[in-house]
Amino acid sequence: MNSIVLACDLGGTNLRVAAVAGSGEILTRTKCVTPRSGRPQDIVSAIVTSARECLNSLKRDVSVEAIGIAIPAMSIDSDRGIVRKAANLSALNEFALSPAVADKLEIPVLLENDANAAAIGESWVGASKDVKNSICVTLGTGVGGGIILGGNILRGPDWSAGEVGHICVEPDGPPCGCGSHGCIEQYASATAISRISGELGKPGQSAFDIFEAAKRGDEVAQKVFRRMGSYLGIALSGLINVLNPEVIVIGGGVAAGWDLFIGHVRDEISRRAYSEPARRAKLVPALLGDDAGILGAARTALTSSASNSAKTDPEALIAA
Amino acid sequence: MNSIVLACDLGGTNLRVAAVAGSGEILTRTKCVTPRSGRPQDIVSAIVTSARECLNSLKRDVSVEAIGIAIPAMSIDSDRGIVRKAANLSALNEFALSPAVADKLEIPVLLENDANAAAIGESWVGASKDVKNSICVTLGTGVGGGIILGGNILRGPDWSAGEVGHICVEPDGPPCGCGSHGCIEQYASATAISRISGELGKPGQSAFDIFEAAKRGDEVAQKVFRRMGSYLGIALSGLINVLNPEVIVIGGGVAAGWDLFIGHVRDEISRRAYSEPARRAKLVPALLGDDAGILGAARTALTSSASNSAKTDPEALIAA
Repeated sequence: MNSIVLACDLGGTNLRVAAVAGSGEILTRTKCVTPRSGRPQDIVSAIVTSARECLNSLKRDVSVEAIGIAIPAMSIDSDRGIVRKAANLSALNEFALSPAVADKLEIPVLLENDANAAAIGESWVGASKDVKNSICVTLGTGVGGGIILGGNILRGPDWSAGEVGHICVEPDGPPCGCGSHGCIEQYASATAISRISGELGKPGQSAFDIFEAAKRGDEVAQKVFRRMGSYLGIALSGLINVLNPEVIVIGGGVAAGWDLFIGHVRDEISRRAYSEPARRAKLVPALLGDDAGILGAARTALTSSASNSAKTDPEALIAA
Repeated sequence: MNSIVLACDLGGTNLRVAAVAGSGEILTRTKCVTPRSGRPQDIVSAIVTSARECLNSLKRDVSVEAIGIAIPAMSIDSDRGIVRKAANLSALNEFALSPAVADKLEIPVLLENDANAAAIGESWVGASKDVKNSICVTLGTGVGGGIILGGNILRGPDWSAGEVGHICVEPDGPPCGCGSHGCIEQYASATAISRISGELGKPGQSAFDIFEAAKRGDEVAQKVFRRMGSYLGIALSGLINVLNPEVIVIGGGVAAGWDLFIGHVRDEISRRAYSEPARRAKLVPALLGDDAGILGAARTALTSSASNSAKTDPEALIAA
């Protein structure tokens, strides 16, 4: 009987669940809309239903070790499986998600911050798989981050470590959702790209519009990416000096503009970071796309179950 | 026979060596001027002479396990014991210091960056001894740093991690010795305090003059510490978001002005960092003063020798 894990990427918009083999292969997957009722039990039900759906579509000769759940949580109480504070899923604030899911699926439940999960996924089977020290930066609506040191994710006592999006790069810069001003999220997220374009005289454009315009050679759009890249380079220079990473993985929707910004990032790093760690740190695009989070959640579940020999037969889960 | 280690704090000005017990007690110590001939062998001789002097002043029933050497090195090749680049001791650049010292003393030699050594010292028997995750920031002529995560010093593959002094807090700020602009070293070092005072209309004063003036109520001097504290708060907020430390130890000569700047540091952190990790991170003054580096070097030697049972009789060293 082959051992597998379940993995869930619980986003503010979509809830995705997959069955994942120990090799990192995604065996089957489901996707549904994240319940927005505000009732945490509805989210639990959706996870459980999706999990059973995944298992039903598998051949039965598997043993399910655990389920890993990636959530947009700024803070997690891992001992008790409580989501302390979730960014786009306030229904889960202070909710004991692990016990609720474990109660239905009867397997161990492991929670992980979504940006950490992406870093774990890329480190397991993606862009940073060959090194032990890496940083994964996700440039999306916001800017997320995860840090792998010595092969392990850095969580910190509040499970809040890795928030690289909230490094300040301009003390009097635009206000940030986190309460500070001038965080790198205000310069390198999709939202920021749109705002910077407005500041440069072209308001009301999406990051995608600006990306397309920059590719066509539009000077203002290119200037937006230059500014974005320079600020990203400032933030990464600090991380290079402080953490001495071997690889910095850059993912998220904005990373599609790689050729438009990466030169400016590199220029800034060569101007600002110490030369030895700057030479060491390779900047690479993420490889796993939308699957980074789910693979990281799977890896978290596998790592945990490696030190836990209790296995559950999927029959029980499906029959329940 | 009690086991002890030797520890050396090799600075640009002074060379200090101590014999340290496993408890962290300094049993005896020497201090001399660091040879400035430019010949690395003169530095080796000074270390060896000081080490033998320490051992001569001890009673003989000790076994010397190893010697730890703290150096102002930006990068170390630990496998080969080579100082890649030393900040104020260019004679040691690319010099194989460990083999040279081991050849004379016939004990294992462990190199450590001086700021890392201070962090290790404070974490062993100082201000951060009760926690596993801490950052030690040393505010002196420059700004140094060391990071302890999960009880271990973060060195990175180039042994260059922990350079918190070179986090950028003002992209277009004053040029920094590292080649960047607006590093926190340009706002929170003794040198910076003197420069800021000049910018505010009072040039030519030392950090100590400004400290004394601020204590007497001088408004310009107090404003210098306010600016210094605010920028330090910006840098520490980023570190709190990224590393989620339990304790941040602040040491070095400038930390004498604690009451003049710490309120501004805390204000900035409460404005900028995520609330959970900000509440977690205690700001505390360093406890070990000038001994932090030597105790950290001792701890490094002890930790190494714990996994190495080879012991050397001090008789051999003294007689050599």
